[in-house]
Amino acid sequence: MKVSRVYNFSAGPAVLPESVLREAAEEMLDYKGTGMSVMEMSHRSKAYDTIIKEAEADLRELMNIPDNYKVLFLQGGANLQFAMIPMNLMKNKVADYIVTGQWAKKAYNEAKLYGTVNKIASSEDKTFSYIPDCSDLNISENADYVYICENNTIYGTKFKELPNTKGKTLVSDVSSCFLSEPVDVSKYGLIYGGVQKNIGPAGVVVAIIREDLVTDDTLPGTPTMMKYKTHVDAKSLYNTPPAYGIYICGKVFKWLKAQGGLEKMKEINDKKAALLYDFLDQSNMFKGTVVKEDRSIMNVPFVTGNDELDAKFIKESEKAGFVNLKGHRSVGGMRASIYNAMPMEGVEKLVDFMKKFEEENA
Amino acid sequence: MKVSRVYNFSAGPAVLPESVLREAAEEMLDYKGTGMSVMEMSHRSKAYDTIIKEAEADLRELMNIPDNYKVLFLQGGANLQFAMIPMNLMKNKVADYIVTGQWAKKAYNEAKLYGTVNKIASSEDKTFSYIPDCSDLNISENADYVYICENNTIYGTKFKELPNTKGKTLVSDVSSCFLSEPVDVSKYGLIYGGVQKNIGPAGVVVAIIREDLVTDDTLPGTPTMMKYKTHVDAKSLYNTPPAYGIYICGKVFKWLKAQGGLEKMKEINDKKAALLYDFLDQSNMFKGTVVKEDRSIMNVPFVTGNDELDAKFIKESEKAGFVNLKGHRSVGGMRASIYNAMPMEGVEKLVDFMKKFEEENA
Ligand SMILES: Cc1ncc(COP(=O)(O)O)c(C=O)c1O
Ligand SMILES: Cc1ncc(COP(=O)(O)O)c(C=O)c1O
Ligand SMILES: [Mg+2]
Ligand SMILES: [Mg+2]
Ligand SMILES: [Mg+2]
Ligand SMILES: [Mg+2]
Repeated sequence: MKVSRVYNFSAGPAVLPESVLREAAEEMLDYKGTGMSVMEMSHRSKAYDTIIKEAEADLRELMNIPDNYKVLFLQGGANLQFAMIPMNLMKNKVADYIVTGQWAKKAYNEAKLYGTVNKIASSEDKTFSYIPDCSDLNISENADYVYICENNTIYGTKFKELPNTKGKTLVSDVSSCFLSEPVDVSKYGLIYGGVQKNIGPAGVVVAIIREDLVTDDTLPGTPTMMKYKTHVDAKSLYNTPPAYGIYICGKVFKWLKAQGGLEKMKEINDKKAALLYDFLDQSNMFKGTVVKEDRSIMNVPFVTGNDELDAKFIKESEKAGFVNLKGHRSVGGMRASIYNAMPMEGVEKLVDFMKKFEEENA
Repeated sequence: MKVSRVYNFSAGPAVLPESVLREAAEEMLDYKGTGMSVMEMSHRSKAYDTIIKEAEADLRELMNIPDNYKVLFLQGGANLQFAMIPMNLMKNKVADYIVTGQWAKKAYNEAKLYGTVNKIASSEDKTFSYIPDCSDLNISENADYVYICENNTIYGTKFKELPNTKGKTLVSDVSSCFLSEPVDVSKYGLIYGGVQKNIGPAGVVVAIIREDLVTDDTLPGTPTMMKYKTHVDAKSLYNTPPAYGIYICGKVFKWLKAQGGLEKMKEINDKKAALLYDFLDQSNMFKGTVVKEDRSIMNVPFVTGNDELDAKFIKESEKAGFVNLKGHRSVGGMRASIYNAMPMEGVEKLVDFMKKFEEENA
């Protein structure tokens, strides 16, 4: 099979490890002698049971997830979590949100359907180009939780330190930084994300929730499918799960283990990001849009300061095999998403291309 | 690639056309020269836009969907629809349910979270082995809709005639008979199903809804993701859709068109089912569990009347390459799901095997 691959800088769905895709292709018609594709497999079968259990076990190992946390594979995308979180956790009907981008803002607006929601910090004043100081915020006394979006996909910022929640439960959307570096799960009540950036194909959400937060006491009118308890009790098999997506996630977990785990991934990701940021910092044409100390190592937005030049860069880079570098419409310019599966070589070649472009257009 | 395939009679996830799987495998690393897998593709990209638009257009053509119906690709499985339907349609907070199996019953119970729900007919008295007469039911005067599960996957019954709803909106779960025969969409307000039986991999729901039922006036507390209007307005791209699953569904739609469309599929499906039912009717060992006139052409439950013999049959059939013939735990015995992608040959060989088994165990 002759295959020509591009360097795909999409913010999500995004690049996956080539070896994972090759395995999936090889197993498509006959998964390990079962005589069928994983797509055709009953989710109650022995073969699938092994797939989903191994996926969970590998994720637990990678993230060092404590025993008192449940791991769930859910449907509906991160957007469904924006409602599921308040429906399950808002016992006092109060929550505090830190708004550092469009996704945090959407979660904040959705939560308002269910109770009193306080915006306790925001960086909207400067187009979300920084993370506010969260060391001593005015946390509501009866807040059921404090919510953050830990890596802001669109703006390219990242919480380098978790907010001081003053003892309140921390809920975090890690969609765009999932498995990019080690995390201390015990600091969170709920940590979740859509898998379509760093883990697998769209259609699966991984949610990791502390046991004591899983209760039957949800808001009136909460659909059965939107109770965490439903899925905890059924071990993510209450109904037919997004089985093929979970299978691919499982392969990515094994790939991450083979790379050396999350410490190693952080090392690699830091290097990849430094390569790009160092170039941006010395370039006279390109510059990053985010304050240095809050820079994401996953999503790197940058601009030339000239819309026409931006457009020219995007066009020429695409021709050269660097695709999806156009920035989100709300920021403009460019954005390179350099998730786990983006090889170092991809970033090196991008920087070379940027250098050349700068010379040619100086 | 040496591949050995079994005959997979799973009720869902279920067998898919082999040619579809082959194409998916071939395109896994490089979809039509894009240099990436469909799994890696931005759902806002041009290539993906073509995929999802063609999928919708092909489905519209196959089902002859009138222009005043919207086609949605959703997440959450049929189970999420059990709540989404009342949340969107229960303007008077009253609905009538016809309970012909576990899935209708689950939908009925879920709807009770949102209003007054009347069980206007049921076949539970005889283990759901028939479809009740629905020609003159006591439809509630202010019912917002009448709900059915059109093909009962577990019990193997099918509505051969739609209920007389006396002018009320008909809502139908067609998960296990989707695209198995032509339907007159105009008779329904909402027709929906999980795709994991007859169309594609688990994780996608197709919902076809009449325009006038799509309103902003949903029950208080309805999550944004659970408003049909959200997805209608965004053409199924409000958030990241289960993109790879939709791509596979699209391939199945094209496969169905190549087979000759739904008239042709009905012809083939009728033949396949007749082969199996005719054998059951003349066999002294095996018998179907459903009254003749309500038999499903997709799910065929049968028993020997002897639990040990059933177990022996299941064991030996599996060894012979006929898998997932065990009946649902609530019916026992066997069930052969013979969806669109099950070739005639699979049913022929199964019947041959049953004959031989009967001879050897007479
Ligand atoms: C941080 C973050 N949260 C949430 C979302 C929304 O996820 P979904 O499309 O799965 O609802 C995205 C991107 O799509 C994201 O980047
Ligand atoms: C007729 C019918 N409705 C609903 C369901 C439930 O679907 P899901 O698992 O996608 O929620 C099934 C089977 O799984 C079914 O056969
Ligand atoms: Mg953001
Ligand atoms: Mg610079
Ligand atoms: Mg049923
Ligand atoms: Mg008989």
